[in-house]
Amino acid sequence: MSLSFQVEAQAGPARLGRITTPHGEIETPAFMPVGTVASVKAVPQDVLEELGAQIILGNTYHLYLRPGHDLIRGMGGLHRFMSWKRPILTDSGGFQVFSLSELRKITEDGVNFRSHLDGSSHLFTPERSIEIQIALGADIIMAFDECTEYPAEDSRIRDSMEMTLRWAKRSRDYFEAHKNEVPWAEQLPERTQSLFGIVQGGMYPKLRRESAERTVELDFPGYAIGGLSVGEPRERTQDMIAAALEVLPKDKPRYVMGVGYPDEIARYAAMGVDMMDCVLPTRAARHGLLFTSEGRLNIKNTRYAQDQRPADPKCGCKVCARYNRAYLRHLFVAGEPLAGVLNTVHNLAFYLDTMRAVRHAIRLGDTSAFLSGSAPNA
Amino acid sequence: MSLSFQVEAQAGPARLGRITTPHGEIETPAFMPVGTVASVKAVPQDVLEELGAQIILGNTYHLYLRPGHDLIRGMGGLHRFMSWKRPILTDSGGFQVFSLSELRKITEDGVNFRSHLDGSSHLFTPERSIEIQIALGADIIMAFDECTEYPAEDSRIRDSMEMTLRWAKRSRDYFEAHKNEVPWAEQLPERTQSLFGIVQGGMYPKLRRESAERTVELDFPGYAIGGLSVGEPRERTQDMIAAALEVLPKDKPRYVMGVGYPDEIARYAAMGVDMMDCVLPTRAARHGLLFTSEGRLNIKNTRYAQDQRPADPKCGCKVCARYNRAYLRHLFVAGEPLAGVLNTVHNLAFYLDTMRAVRHAIRLGDTSAFLSGSAPNA
Repeated sequence: MSLSFQVEAQAGPARLGRITTPHGEIETPAFMPVGTVASVKAVPQDVLEELGAQIILGNTYHLYLRPGHDLIRGMGGLHRFMSWKRPILTDSGGFQVFSLSELRKITEDGVNFRSHLDGSSHLFTPERSIEIQIALGADIIMAFDECTEYPAEDSRIRDSMEMTLRWAKRSRDYFEAHKNEVPWAEQLPERTQSLFGIVQGGMYPKLRRESAERTVELDFPGYAIGGLSVGEPRERTQDMIAAALEVLPKDKPRYVMGVGYPDEIARYAAMGVDMMDCVLPTRAARHGLLFTSEGRLNIKNTRYAQDQRPADPKCGCKVCARYNRAYLRHLFVAGEPLAGVLNTVHNLAFYLDTMRAVRHAIRLGDTSAFLSGSAPNA
Repeated sequence: MSLSFQVEAQAGPARLGRITTPHGEIETPAFMPVGTVASVKAVPQDVLEELGAQIILGNTYHLYLRPGHDLIRGMGGLHRFMSWKRPILTDSGGFQVFSLSELRKITEDGVNFRSHLDGSSHLFTPERSIEIQIALGADIIMAFDECTEYPAEDSRIRDSMEMTLRWAKRSRDYFEAHKNEVPWAEQLPERTQSLFGIVQGGMYPKLRRESAERTVELDFPGYAIGGLSVGEPRERTQDMIAAALEVLPKDKPRYVMGVGYPDEIARYAAMGVDMMDCVLPTRAARHGLLFTSEGRLNIKNTRYAQDQRPADPKCGCKVCARYNRAYLRHLFVAGEPLAGVLNTVHNLAFYLDTMRAVRHAIRLGDTSAFLSGSAPNA
């Protein structure tokens, strides 16, 4: 049995749901912190639990290179390796190797790439990506897709979309043949991983709909919308999400990959998206950018040098409960490692709280505040 | 009223005690984690509390440069600035400016030095050091001393010791005239900081005893033994501590500055030392060196790549309870910031547990295991 998905309430197109995976439940709409190489940067796992993170994301490309999927399989899978007992999702590695623009070559077979660490050559195919993701043992894994660059020629977008569809079928076929090889197969004998398909189609609503229809024909337990946040204007992102959502089945989880700012994730959730992930809260934190109910706050700024207020006076996180802006600024300016820890904890709390607020609004039946685009978190 | 010190049990020269300061009690023998620039590197304050740290140390030199003692005074003092409600001790800055060997010039007046950050010129005198330490508002502050280099000529050692004694008197006189200027004077009207004197005397027991006798004549509420861990053999360190302890009054806290390895801090505590501080557990952690009941463990080592055991199977800290060596090694090798966090938490737990074990042994009346030098923590 793979995952189950129950919709518990609706507000327009938005859904309050619950995904049950082999390693536990996820309330949706959900934001997934990114734990690139088996760690959400600077945050211990018990703090992630305290923050209410119900699922985290791991990057197949990074884990494949370091420490390697064979090692992780030998350690009992990613959950045991990193001591995270809740659900995990891994991406396919497609987006990461796509980002290695100078170091990769794409063919029908797959993607040849060079490691950003040591320049060594590697090949990811749909089969190889799924093999690695089975070894890692995340609860939700992703089909190997080609993330179409932006901007791109019309013919290139269609060709890329067609190849992603062929790769989706190859991913599915390999997964069906090997899904009982997951490292926790003996501990959870009745459960399997869930493989999600990925919608591509560039910036054309028509192609997005076609990609969604034909991906749905392959019958996955959930669907992602990929190829976004690749440099396009934010309005295009939203239009592409809307086009795909028209087609994707309402009884399956719908996941938008790699987005976005707090107001964006809230808006997409209000549009009917169930899952999102983004490096923004963690990466911005390490650069001293804090997300707050009053907008973005650059903690480096001299104006905060003697500011006794917490980063966000409306935030209930343990960082805002204890430390003021003057101290956070000092830590950042002095290059103290605690700056990264505290800033990341706050930003993740803000993102997870944003999703909590959206879920609450859905339960109350009114998400209009998030759809208006005037949310104060922009 | 400055601090009070009660001895509750003894085992030979070792004492189980309790120091009461304006910001709370410290069980002794105590190990003090070092929080150089208002942060014990990589560790949030709530985790320090969980670990049972009862007092931390701040470095006057670093805090003076960044964020500056005037800013900290304006924020209500170091406790409020960094949100640490328990006791704090600040050093005088003497050792740090002494370490800037190329950048400082010592005269009878004080030490001229250049900032390691921007090369700007500064002068620390005994009066200035105490002024800064009053502004920071630690519970225990230190007289401004000259840390004699090692090795040094006999005449140089005596001259340096004599100047430290003159500086101790100047430190005390300035403190007595200004001690009511501490930033928390209104909140804790009956309490004052406590100024400790510092014993110097190079590597001669005779000079150590003379330094101790003459420092005691100045009548401080506690005494430190300084000028150790400057490159001398460890046996010399121990001999100098023993010489000073012969003279220092038994009814006052006795503090050895800047030591040492786990077996050393346990041995010195068994010899009758009440307080110690050292950057070793925090600094070593950031370099992947873990202290364990089985000895030192270099987590980088390939042999730990698939090691499912915790860093220290006998340790009860939250790191050892949750993560294995393979994961800690991966974090370190991958350069993940969580490596510094988890390694530091474990090392501090090990140091604080070592002191707990010594206190327990004193309560039971037998510290011979720590004096033998065969402790397994070496």
